[in-house]
Amino acid sequence: MANKKRGSDAERELLHLLSQQGFSVARVAGSGMISETNCDLFAGNGKKKYAVEVKISSNNKKYLRKEQISELIKFAKNFGLNPILAIKFLRKGWWFIHPDKLDKTGKGLAISFDDIKRRGKSFERFVR
Amino acid sequence: MANKKRGSDAERELLHLLSQQGFSVARVAGSGMISETNCDLFAGNGKKKYAVEVKISSNNKKYLRKEQISELIKFAKNFGLNPILAIKFLRKGWWFIHPDKLDKTGKGLAISFDDIKRRGKSFERFVR
Repeated sequence: MANKKRGSDAERELLHLLSQQGFSVARVAGSGMISETNCDLFAGNGKKKYAVEVKISSNNKKYLRKEQISELIKFAKNFGLNPILAIKFLRKGWWFIHPDKLDKTGKGLAISFDDIKRRGKSFERFVR
Repeated sequence: MANKKRGSDAERELLHLLSQQGFSVARVAGSGMISETNCDLFAGNGKKKYAVEVKISSNNKKYLRKEQISELIKFAKNFGLNPILAIKFLRKGWWFIHPDKLDKTGKGLAISFDDIKRRGKSFERFVR
C-alpha cells in the first residue's frame, strides 16, 4: 500500500510538472490500483503527444515486466500517441525513455540510471 | 452527490460498452469530481480516436456550458484526438455528437433528442 501511495504521488507530481510546462495532462482513473490500466498519464501539447507509464526507482536500476511494456505500446498506438516511460530516480529526478531503448534481461526489461542518462532524456530535454 | 454518482456510473458503463467493442478506453481520474478535467474518457481503436465528454439527460434536451465544450475541443486537439459528446438519454440509450453540431442558445449550447437522432450517431453507428 505504501508503494501504491508513492506511485500515485509520483503520478500527481509529474502531472503538475508537465501542466506547468503547458501540457494538457490527464491521470488515468484506477492507475496504480487496477492491473488492467495500460498507462498512467496522457500528456499532450499539440506537438508532443504521449501515453506515459510512470515508475519510481529507489536505486540505480529499474526492472520492468515485458507484458506491461508491450501493453503500453499497444495502448498508445490505439490513440496515435507515443509510448514513453517516465522514471523518477531517488534524488536524481525525472528521466524519460522510449520503451524500444530498454535493455532485455532474461525474462523482462530493465534500464540503469547510467543508461537512461545516455539513451533517454532529462525532464528539461523532454519538455523542450 | 447523487448526480455525481449517476455521472460516474454512466462513465463506467460507457467505458465497458466501448471496451466490449474493441476500443482501448481510459477513464480520467477525478472526472465528475474536479472542475478542471476536460474530458471523461479516452477511447481509441487505432482508427477511431476520441476524447469523450460524457453526459446524462433525464428528459429530451441537454444543455451544455459553452466553456466546457470549448475546453473539450482544445484538450482533444492537444492529443490529436477527436472531441465527441456522448449523451445517455433516459430509456433511449447512448447517442454521440460532434461539438460543432450542437445548437447555440443565448448563453450556452444545447441539443434535443430529436436533433441528436438526425445529426448525431447511435451507439451502433458510432462504433461501426
